[in-house]
Amino acid sequence: MEDYMKVGKVSDAVIRRLPRYYRELLVLRTQGVERVSSEKLAARMRLNASQVRQDFNCFGGFGQQGYGYNVTSLLSEVRRILALNREYKLVIVGAGNMGHALANFEGFANDGFHVVALFDNNEALIGKEINGKPVLSVATLGDYIRANGVDIGVITARRSFAQELADAMIEAGIKGIWNFAPIDIEGEVAIENVHLSDILCALTYRMEHGNEAEE
Amino acid sequence: MEDYMKVGKVSDAVIRRLPRYYRELLVLRTQGVERVSSEKLAARMRLNASQVRQDFNCFGGFGQQGYGYNVTSLLSEVRRILALNREYKLVIVGAGNMGHALANFEGFANDGFHVVALFDNNEALIGKEINGKPVLSVATLGDYIRANGVDIGVITARRSFAQELADAMIEAGIKGIWNFAPIDIEGEVAIENVHLSDILCALTYRMEHGNEAEE
Repeated sequence: MEDYMKVGKVSDAVIRRLPRYYRELLVLRTQGVERVSSEKLAARMRLNASQVRQDFNCFGGFGQQGYGYNVTSLLSEVRRILALNREYKLVIVGAGNMGHALANFEGFANDGFHVVALFDNNEALIGKEINGKPVLSVATLGDYIRANGVDIGVITARRSFAQELADAMIEAGIKGIWNFAPIDIEGEVAIENVHLSDILCALTYRMEHGNEAEE
Repeated sequence: MEDYMKVGKVSDAVIRRLPRYYRELLVLRTQGVERVSSEKLAARMRLNASQVRQDFNCFGGFGQQGYGYNVTSLLSEVRRILALNREYKLVIVGAGNMGHALANFEGFANDGFHVVALFDNNEALIGKEINGKPVLSVATLGDYIRANGVDIGVITARRSFAQELADAMIEAGIKGIWNFAPIDIEGEVAIENVHLSDILCALTYRMEHGNEAEE
């Protein structure tokens, strides 16, 4: 266990900013930038510098006064904090349009996320391949997860099946669930419930009240 | 202009919680609940009661000590704050799997979001219908937005086209952009850039560090 893992609770807002830092640092490294100040990093992310320093202080700092952050080592720390220094096997449950879109999504593989199979209950889809991955019967979901050590289950099925599918995956040992059905899945593993309508409502808020929200 | 519009900047975290309040209040109203305390509302949302009171205080309060919140009137206030007390016309640019999935998404219409057309540059798709909506040539995008008073443009096209499409829509008078291409779109309108990989990274963070993040 690293030191930064011993820190107390980290706010949800900080957790959500970490992947953004990660993306910005990837761009900086691609551009050959060796070090970056909290001011410059903040400007790229439309934050302020003290916010950036405070965020990294949650994990022990990493910066040096008057020097800033070394891009390569900060990137490596953020990768480690986000647990991206390993590979993950994903299954997608629901081989409809959303499942299709996620199976084809550009960029997941770069971060170590590998879709290994899709599952559906539609006989017309079972046996087909999507982006080279097999579509299997949802009846075999639990066995597949156990046999293949799948880490993450993505749910793109209908709302009415979502909790039941989550329960079956958790029972089979899945470690994380990414749910797109418009319902809050519950369970004793890490869960991200994505409510697409919520994002749209945040957009209409900004359309009405202006784009001036603080971070 | 209402009083709550005169308050200062509202934090991004509060804006993101508003749609969740909205969903919880809809459920409570459906259940026939007339009033709810900040404690009960907080428990449903896994927040604490003072956070709930503080959030609504950003907009002027709405609660009454010893009584709590009237569900119907709080719901109506939240709808108004989120600007959901009107209808919105959406176009989806990119009629691939993600465009398809969004055009079919259950629930948008309930909140007043109406997909009126999809756009693509693929001749094989142009002229077809998806969920009863026409797929039109992207060459006609600006004219369509102007002629039909479209409010929101959803981008599900490839990363390399995304900014250009956004510029064309803004030029044609669009008021908000919901972007799914893995790039930060910029422009002088309300914009929500959804980075699907970021959500996955937040999930792996929780898988590694536990689910105990504060709100």
